Amino acid sequence: MHVTVELCLVPMGVGVSVSEYVAACERVLRDEGFEPDLHAYGTNFEGDWDDVMAAVRRCHETVHDMGVPRIFTAVKLGTRTDRVQTLSEKVTSVRSLRQGPRLI
Amino acid sequence: MHVTVELCLVPMGVGVSVSEYVAACERVLRDEGFEPDLHAYGTNFEGDWDDVMAAVRRCHETVHDMGVPRIFTAVKLGTRTDRVQTLSEKVTSVRSLRQGPRLI
Amino acid sequence: MHVTVELCLVPMGVGVSVSEYVAACERVLRDEGFEPDLHAYGTNFEGDWDDVMAAVRRCHETVHDMGVPRIFTAVKLGTRTDRVQTLSEKVTSVRSLRQGPRLI
Amino acid sequence: MHVTVELCLVPMGVGVSVSEYVAACERVLRDEGFEPDLHAYGTNFEGDWDDVMAAVRRCHETVHDMGVPRIFTAVKLGTRTDRVQTLSEKVTSVRSLRQGPRLI
Repeated sequence: MHVTVELCLVPMGVGVSVSEYVAACERVLRDEGFEPDLHAYGTNFEGDWDDVMAAVRRCHETVHDMGVPRIFTAVKLGTRTDRVQTLSEKVTSVRSLRQGPRLI
Repeated sequence: MHVTVELCLVPMGVGVSVSEYVAACERVLRDEGFEPDLHAYGTNFEGDWDDVMAAVRRCHETVHDMGVPRIFTAVKLGTRTDRVQTLSEKVTSVRSLRQGPRLI
Repeated sequence: MHVTVELCLVPMGVGVSVSEYVAACERVLRDEGFEPDLHAYGTNFEGDWDDVMAAVRRCHETVHDMGVPRIFTAVKLGTRTDRVQTLSEKVTSVRSLRQGPRLI
Repeated sequence: MHVTVELCLVPMGVGVSVSEYVAACERVLRDEGFEPDLHAYGTNFEGDWDDVMAAVRRCHETVHDMGVPRIFTAVKLGTRTDRVQTLSEKVTSVRSLRQGPRLI
Protein backbone atom coordinates (compact mmCIF):
# COMPACT_ATOMS: atom_id res chain seq x y z
CA MET A 1 0.00 0.00 0.00
CA HIS A 2 1.44 3.35 -1.11
CA VAL A 3 1.36 6.03 1.56
CA THR A 4 2.24 9.72 1.56
CA VAL A 5 3.67 10.93 4.86
CA GLU A 6 4.50 14.05 6.82
CA LEU A 7 6.91 13.42 9.69
CA CYS A 8 7.40 16.02 12.41
CA LEU A 9 9.65 14.76 15.19
CA VAL A 10 9.98 16.86 18.36
CA PRO A 11 12.87 15.95 20.69
CA MET A 12 12.02 16.54 24.37
CA GLY A 13 14.28 16.95 27.36
CA VAL A 14 17.02 18.64 25.37
CA GLY A 15 17.74 22.25 24.40
CA VAL A 16 15.59 24.54 22.30
CA SER A 17 17.63 23.93 19.17
CA VAL A 18 16.62 20.72 17.50
CA SER A 19 18.01 21.17 13.99
CA GLU A 20 20.68 18.51 14.38
CA TYR A 21 18.00 15.87 15.12
CA VAL A 22 15.85 16.91 12.19
CA ALA A 23 18.92 16.77 9.95
CA ALA A 24 19.74 13.30 11.27
CA CYS A 25 16.24 12.09 10.39
CA GLU A 26 16.56 13.54 6.91
CA ARG A 27 19.77 11.52 6.48
CA VAL A 28 17.99 8.38 7.68
CA LEU A 29 15.26 8.90 5.12
CA ARG A 30 17.75 9.45 2.32
CA ASP A 31 19.73 6.39 3.42
CA GLU A 32 16.52 4.37 3.23
CA GLY A 33 16.04 5.49 -0.37
CA PHE A 34 13.33 8.09 0.12
CA GLU A 35 13.38 11.62 -1.33
CA PRO A 36 12.43 13.72 1.71
CA ASP A 37 11.00 17.19 1.16
CA LEU A 38 11.96 19.25 4.19
CA HIS A 39 9.76 22.21 5.13
CA ALA A 40 9.48 24.37 8.23
CA TYR A 41 7.01 22.08 10.02
CA GLY A 42 8.08 18.61 8.99
CA THR A 43 9.43 16.39 6.27
CA ASN A 44 7.21 14.93 3.54
CA PHE A 45 8.03 11.67 1.84
CA GLU A 46 6.23 8.68 0.35
CA GLY A 47 6.61 5.00 -0.35
CA ASP A 48 5.42 1.55 0.57
CA TRP A 49 3.67 1.44 3.96
CA ASP A 50 6.05 -0.99 5.63
CA ASP A 51 9.16 0.72 4.30
CA VAL A 52 7.86 4.08 5.50
CA MET A 53 7.08 2.84 8.99
CA ALA A 54 10.45 1.12 9.29
CA ALA A 55 12.10 4.43 8.35
CA VAL A 56 10.11 6.36 10.96
CA ARG A 57 11.17 3.80 13.55
CA ARG A 58 14.80 4.20 12.50
CA CYS A 59 14.41 7.97 12.91
CA HIS A 60 13.25 7.47 16.50
CA GLU A 61 16.10 5.04 17.20
CA THR A 62 18.67 7.39 15.68
CA VAL A 63 17.50 10.41 17.66
CA HIS A 64 17.41 8.40 20.90
CA ASP A 65 20.95 7.20 20.14
CA MET A 66 21.98 10.86 19.91
CA GLY A 67 21.00 11.23 23.58
CA VAL A 68 17.40 12.42 23.38
CA PRO A 69 15.43 10.74 26.20
CA ARG A 70 11.93 11.46 24.93
CA ILE A 71 10.43 12.00 21.48
CA PHE A 72 7.03 13.33 20.48
CA THR A 73 6.25 12.78 16.83
CA ALA A 74 3.30 13.99 14.78
CA VAL A 75 2.71 12.04 11.60
CA LYS A 76 0.20 12.52 8.81
CA LEU A 77 -0.59 9.58 6.56
CA GLY A 78 -2.53 9.52 3.31
CA THR A 79 -3.75 6.51 1.36
CA ARG A 80 -6.08 6.29 -1.62
CA THR A 81 -7.73 3.43 -3.49
CA ASP A 82 -9.23 5.50 -6.31
CA ARG A 83 -5.84 6.31 -7.77
CA VAL A 84 -2.18 6.75 -6.86
CA GLN A 85 -1.37 10.35 -5.98
CA THR A 86 2.18 11.45 -5.36
CA LEU A 87 3.16 14.26 -3.02
CA SER A 88 4.18 16.51 -5.91
CA GLU A 89 0.82 15.99 -7.60
CA LYS A 90 -0.90 17.24 -4.45
CA VAL A 91 0.92 20.55 -4.70
CA THR A 92 0.60 20.82 -8.49
CA SER A 93 -3.12 20.23 -8.20
CA VAL A 94 -3.58 23.23 -5.91
CA ARG A 95 -1.23 25.45 -7.89
CA SER A 96 -3.17 24.82 -11.11
CA LEU A 97 -6.13 26.53 -9.43
CA ARG A 98 -4.24 29.74 -8.77
CA GLN A 99 -5.82 32.12 -11.22
CA GLY A 100 -5.75 35.78 -12.16
CA PRO A 101 -3.99 38.63 -10.44
CA ARG A 102 -3.16 36.61 -7.34
CA LEU A 103 -0.40 34.90 -9.29
CA ILE A 104 1.50 38.14 -9.73
CA MET B 1 10.50 -0.38 21.26
CA HIS B 2 7.41 0.55 23.26
CA VAL B 3 5.34 3.36 21.74
CA THR B 4 2.28 5.28 22.91
CA VAL B 5 -0.02 6.31 20.07
CA GLU B 6 -2.92 8.54 19.23
CA LEU B 7 -4.71 7.56 16.03
CA CYS B 8 -7.13 9.94 14.35
CA LEU B 9 -8.38 8.60 11.02
CA VAL B 10 -10.43 10.90 8.79
CA PRO B 11 -12.30 9.22 5.91
CA MET B 12 -12.56 11.47 2.83
CA GLY B 13 -14.92 11.32 -0.11
CA VAL B 14 -17.80 9.96 1.95
CA GLY B 15 -20.55 11.58 4.01
CA VAL B 16 -20.16 13.79 7.03
CA SER B 17 -20.85 10.95 9.46
CA VAL B 18 -17.76 8.87 10.02
CA SER B 19 -18.65 7.03 13.23
CA GLU B 20 -18.94 3.64 11.57
CA TYR B 21 -15.34 3.86 10.34
CA VAL B 22 -14.02 4.94 13.72
CA ALA B 23 -15.90 2.07 15.31
CA ALA B 24 -14.42 -0.35 12.76
CA CYS B 25 -10.91 0.82 13.65
CA GLU B 26 -11.64 0.37 17.32
CA ARG B 27 -12.63 -3.23 16.59
CA VAL B 28 -9.43 -3.77 14.61
CA LEU B 29 -7.38 -2.52 17.54
CA ARG B 30 -9.22 -4.79 19.99
CA ASP B 31 -8.85 -7.73 17.62
CA GLU B 32 -5.12 -7.07 17.54
CA GLY B 33 -4.98 -7.25 21.33
CA PHE B 34 -4.74 -3.56 22.16
CA GLU B 35 -6.87 -1.73 24.71
CA PRO B 36 -7.95 1.36 22.77
CA ASP B 37 -9.06 4.44 24.69
CA LEU B 38 -11.55 6.25 22.48
CA HIS B 39 -11.96 10.01 22.93
CA ALA B 40 -13.56 12.76 20.87
CA TYR B 41 -10.48 13.43 18.74
CA GLY B 42 -8.88 10.05 18.35
CA THR B 43 -8.05 6.71 19.89
CA ASN B 44 -5.09 6.22 22.21
CA PHE B 45 -3.33 2.90 22.56
CA GLU B 46 0.16 1.55 23.12
CA GLY B 47 2.37 -1.43 22.42
CA ASP B 48 5.39 -2.64 20.53
CA TRP B 49 6.29 -0.38 17.57
CA ASP B 50 5.88 -3.00 14.84
CA ASP B 51 2.61 -4.34 16.26
CA VAL B 52 1.24 -0.81 16.51
CA MET B 53 2.15 0.09 12.94
CA ALA B 54 0.73 -3.17 11.61
CA ALA B 55 -2.54 -2.34 13.40
CA VAL B 56 -2.67 1.17 11.94
CA ARG B 57 -2.16 -0.34 8.51
CA ARG B 58 -4.96 -2.80 9.11
CA CYS B 59 -7.20 0.12 10.11
CA HIS B 60 -6.50 1.80 6.77
CA GLU B 61 -7.12 -1.44 4.87
CA THR B 62 -10.36 -2.09 6.75
CA VAL B 63 -11.74 1.41 6.13
CA HIS B 64 -10.80 1.26 2.44
CA ASP B 65 -12.55 -2.13 2.23
CA MET B 66 -15.68 -0.41 3.61
CA GLY B 67 -15.69 1.75 0.46
CA VAL B 68 -13.76 4.83 1.55
CA PRO B 69 -11.57 5.98 -1.38
CA ARG B 70 -9.26 8.30 0.55
CA ILE B 71 -8.02 8.44 4.13
CA PHE B 72 -6.23 11.21 5.98
CA THR B 73 -4.78 10.06 9.28
CA ALA B 74 -3.10 12.09 12.00
CA VAL B 75 -0.94 10.03 14.35
CA LYS B 76 1.00 11.03 17.45
CA LEU B 77 3.81 8.79 18.61
CA GLY B 78 5.74 8.86 21.86
CA THR B 79 8.87 6.95 22.78
CA ARG B 80 11.18 7.27 25.79
CA THR B 81 14.49 5.77 26.74
CA ASP B 82 14.65 7.14 30.28
CA ARG B 83 11.81 4.96 31.47
CA VAL B 84 8.67 3.19 30.30
CA GLN B 85 5.62 5.39 30.62
CA THR B 86 2.14 4.06 29.93
CA LEU B 87 -0.73 6.12 28.61
CA SER B 88 -2.57 5.96 31.93
CA GLU B 89 0.51 7.21 33.78
CA LYS B 90 0.56 10.26 31.54
CA VAL B 91 -2.93 11.23 32.67
CA THR B 92 -2.36 10.29 36.32
CA SER B 93 0.75 12.43 36.37
CA VAL B 94 -1.17 15.55 35.37
CA ARG B 95 -4.12 14.80 37.65
CA SER B 96 -1.82 14.53 40.65
CA LEU B 97 -0.97 18.20 40.11
CA ARG B 98 -4.58 19.32 40.42
CA GLN B 99 -4.58 21.03 43.77
CA GLY B 100 -6.76 23.21 45.91
CA PRO B 101 -10.17 24.65 45.18
CA ARG B 102 -10.06 23.80 41.52
CA LEU B 103 -10.68 20.19 42.41
CA ILE B 104 -14.04 21.01 43.98
CA MET C 1 -18.83 29.77 15.12
CA HIS C 2 -18.78 26.75 17.43
CA VAL C 3 -15.56 24.75 17.33
CA THR C 4 -14.46 21.49 18.92
CA VAL C 5 -10.77 21.41 19.80
CA GLU C 6 -7.97 19.11 20.78
CA LEU C 7 -4.99 20.91 22.30
CA CYS C 8 -1.65 19.15 22.69
CA LEU C 9 1.06 21.49 23.94
CA VAL C 10 4.65 20.24 23.99
CA PRO C 11 7.15 22.35 26.02
CA MET C 12 10.64 22.33 24.52
CA GLY C 13 13.98 23.17 26.06
CA VAL C 14 12.97 21.84 29.48
CA GLY C 15 13.11 18.42 31.14
CA VAL C 16 11.34 15.27 30.04
CA SER C 17 8.52 15.70 32.57
CA VAL C 18 5.95 18.14 31.30
CA SER C 19 2.96 17.33 33.53
CA GLU C 20 3.12 20.63 35.41
CA TYR C 21 2.69 22.57 32.17
CA VAL C 22 -0.20 20.44 30.99
CA ALA C 23 -1.85 20.89 34.39
CA ALA C 24 -1.35 24.66 34.13
CA CYS C 25 -3.10 24.69 30.77
CA GLU C 26 -5.97 22.69 32.17
CA ARG C 27 -6.37 25.34 34.88
CA VAL C 28 -6.33 28.09 32.26
CA LEU C 29 -9.09 26.36 30.34
CA ARG C 30 -11.20 25.89 33.48
CA ASP C 31 -10.61 29.52 34.47
CA GLU C 32 -11.84 30.56 31.04
CA GLY C 33 -15.05 28.61 31.61
CA PHE C 34 -14.38 25.57 29.47
CA GLU C 35 -14.84 21.96 30.56
CA PRO C 36 -11.58 20.37 29.43
CA ASP C 37 -11.44 16.62 28.90
CA LEU C 38 -7.87 15.54 29.58
CA HIS C 39 -6.59 12.40 27.88
CA ALA C 40 -3.15 10.93 27.36
CA TYR C 41 -2.45 12.81 24.12
CA GLY C 42 -4.13 16.16 24.66
CA THR C 43 -7.06 18.03 26.09
CA ASN C 44 -10.40 18.26 24.30
CA PHE C 45 -12.74 21.21 24.79
CA GLU C 46 -15.21 23.25 22.78
CA GLY C 47 -16.78 26.69 22.53
CA ASP C 48 -16.97 29.82 20.45
CA TRP C 49 -14.06 30.17 18.00
CA ASP C 50 -12.68 33.45 19.38
CA ASP C 51 -12.99 32.34 23.01
CA VAL C 52 -11.21 29.09 22.20
CA MET C 53 -8.34 30.79 20.42
CA ALA C 54 -7.93 33.34 23.19
CA ALA C 55 -7.67 30.45 25.65
CA VAL C 56 -5.05 28.65 23.58
CA ARG C 57 -3.06 31.88 23.47
CA ARG C 58 -3.34 32.21 27.24
CA CYS C 59 -2.05 28.65 27.59
CA HIS C 60 1.04 29.56 25.55
CA GLU C 61 1.57 32.75 27.60
CA THR C 62 1.15 30.87 30.88
CA VAL C 63 3.62 28.15 29.96
CA HIS C 64 6.16 30.68 28.72
CA ASP C 65 5.73 32.57 32.01
CA MET C 66 6.62 29.32 33.79
CA GLY C 67 10.04 29.51 32.12
CA VAL C 68 9.56 27.42 28.99
CA PRO C 69 11.47 29.06 26.12
CA ARG C 70 9.86 27.22 23.24
CA ILE C 71 6.47 25.61 22.68
CA PHE C 72 5.28 23.26 19.96
CA THR C 73 1.53 22.82 19.93
CA ALA C 74 -0.60 20.49 17.84
CA VAL C 75 -4.24 21.53 17.59
CA LYS C 76 -7.19 19.83 15.92
CA LEU C 77 -10.22 21.94 15.07
CA GLY C 78 -13.66 20.82 13.95
CA THR C 79 -16.49 22.94 12.60
CA ARG C 80 -19.78 21.93 11.00
CA THR C 81 -22.55 23.81 9.28
CA ASP C 82 -24.97 20.90 8.91
CA ARG C 83 -25.58 20.68 12.64
CA VAL C 84 -24.01 21.39 15.99
CA GLN C 85 -22.10 18.40 17.32
CA THR C 86 -20.59 18.40 20.78
CA LEU C 87 -17.51 16.50 21.77
CA SER C 88 -19.50 14.04 23.86
CA GLU C 89 -21.81 13.31 20.93
CA LYS C 90 -18.79 12.36 18.84
CA VAL C 91 -17.86 9.65 21.33
CA THR C 92 -21.44 8.53 21.92
CA SER C 93 -21.95 8.18 18.19
CA VAL C 94 -19.10 5.70 17.88
CA ARG C 95 -20.04 3.82 21.04
CA SER C 96 -23.57 3.29 19.77
CA LEU C 97 -22.08 1.24 16.95
CA ARG C 98 -20.31 -1.12 19.31
CA GLN C 99 -23.46 -3.21 19.81
CA GLY C 100 -24.78 -5.80 17.40
CA PRO C 101 -23.17 -8.61 15.49
CA ARG C 102 -19.82 -6.89 15.11
CA LEU C 103 -19.18 -7.28 18.80
CA ILE C 104 -19.58 -11.03 18.70
CA MET D 1 3.09 37.25 20.23
CA HIS D 2 4.70 36.00 17.02
CA VAL D 3 3.63 32.52 15.99
CA THR D 4 4.71 30.16 13.21
CA VAL D 5 1.89 27.99 11.87
CA GLU D 6 1.18 24.98 9.77
CA LEU D 7 -2.43 24.77 8.59
CA CYS D 8 -3.82 21.53 7.16
CA LEU D 9 -7.53 21.79 6.44
CA VAL D 10 -9.43 18.62 5.49
CA PRO D 11 -12.91 19.13 3.99
CA MET D 12 -15.32 16.31 4.91
CA GLY D 13 -18.58 15.24 3.31
CA VAL D 14 -17.44 16.20 -0.17
CA GLY D 15 -15.54 14.40 -2.95
CA VAL D 16 -12.00 13.04 -2.79
CA SER D 17 -10.54 16.05 -4.59
CA VAL D 18 -10.03 18.92 -2.20
CA SER D 19 -7.57 21.11 -4.15
CA GLU D 20 -10.09 23.89 -4.75
CA TYR D 21 -10.59 24.34 -1.01
CA VAL D 22 -6.88 24.38 -0.28
CA ALA D 23 -6.42 26.95 -3.06
CA ALA D 24 -9.21 29.07 -1.57
CA CYS D 25 -7.47 29.04 1.82
CA GLU D 26 -4.21 30.05 0.20
CA ARG D 27 -6.01 33.05 -1.34
CA VAL D 28 -7.48 33.96 2.05
CA LEU D 29 -4.02 33.93 3.59
CA ARG D 30 -2.58 36.09 0.81
CA ASP D 31 -5.51 38.50 1.07
CA GLU D 32 -4.81 38.79 4.79
CA GLY D 33 -1.23 39.78 4.04
CA PHE D 34 0.56 36.54 4.86
CA GLU D 35 3.08 34.79 2.65
CA PRO D 36 1.86 31.19 2.69
CA ASP D 37 4.28 28.41 1.84
CA LEU D 38 2.21 25.59 0.36
CA HIS D 39 3.53 22.04 0.65
CA ALA D 40 2.00 18.63 0.14
CA TYR D 41 0.69 18.30 3.72
CA GLY D 42 -0.31 21.84 4.62
CA THR D 43 0.46 25.51 4.35
CA ASN D 44 3.06 27.22 6.55
CA PHE D 45 2.81 30.89 7.45
CA GLU D 46 3.59 33.18 10.36
CA GLY D 47 2.56 36.42 11.99
CA ASP D 48 0.93 37.94 15.04
CA TRP D 49 -1.13 35.43 17.04
CA ASP D 50 -4.47 37.21 16.72
CA ASP D 51 -4.02 37.93 13.01
CA VAL D 52 -3.11 34.30 12.39
CA MET D 53 -6.12 32.94 14.25
CA ALA D 54 -8.47 35.37 12.50
CA ALA D 55 -7.10 34.13 9.18
CA VAL D 56 -7.61 30.47 10.12
CA ARG D 57 -11.18 31.31 11.07
CA ARG D 58 -11.71 33.04 7.74
CA CYS D 59 -10.39 29.92 5.99
CA HIS D 60 -13.03 27.81 7.77
CA GLU D 61 -15.77 30.33 6.92
CA THR D 62 -14.69 30.48 3.28
CA VAL D 63 -14.62 26.71 2.85
CA HIS D 64 -18.00 26.31 4.54
CA ASP D 65 -19.36 29.02 2.22
CA MET D 66 -18.15 26.89 -0.70
CA GLY D 67 -20.57 24.20 0.45
CA VAL D 68 -18.43 22.01 2.67
CA PRO D 69 -20.55 20.86 5.64
CA ARG D 70 -17.75 19.67 7.91
CA ILE D 71 -14.09 20.61 8.31
CA PHE D 72 -11.31 18.84 10.18
CA THR D 73 -8.22 20.98 10.57
CA ALA D 74 -4.83 20.07 11.99
CA VAL D 75 -2.75 23.06 13.08
CA LYS D 76 0.78 23.26 14.43
CA LEU D 77 1.79 26.35 16.37
CA GLY D 78 5.24 27.44 17.48
CA THR D 79 6.15 30.25 19.85
CA ARG D 80 9.49 31.17 21.43
CA THR D 81 10.55 33.64 24.06
CA ASP D 82 14.30 33.11 23.71
CA ARG D 83 14.38 34.69 20.27
CA VAL D 84 12.28 35.31 17.18
CA GLN D 85 12.62 32.52 14.66
CA THR D 86 11.04 32.75 11.23
CA LEU D 87 9.84 29.78 9.22
CA SER D 88 12.64 30.17 6.70
CA GLU D 89 15.24 30.16 9.48
CA LYS D 90 13.89 26.82 10.67
CA VAL D 91 14.62 25.25 7.29
CA THR D 92 17.94 27.05 6.83
CA SER D 93 19.05 25.85 10.23
CA VAL D 94 18.57 22.20 9.27
CA ARG D 95 20.06 22.66 5.81
CA SER D 96 23.23 24.17 7.26
CA LEU D 97 23.83 20.82 8.94
CA ARG D 98 23.70 18.89 5.70
CA GLN D 99 27.30 19.72 4.83
CA GLY D 100 30.37 18.17 6.37
CA PRO D 101 31.15 14.75 7.76
CA ARG D 102 27.58 13.92 8.60
CA LEU D 103 26.78 13.57 4.91
CA ILE D 104 29.28 10.79 4.44
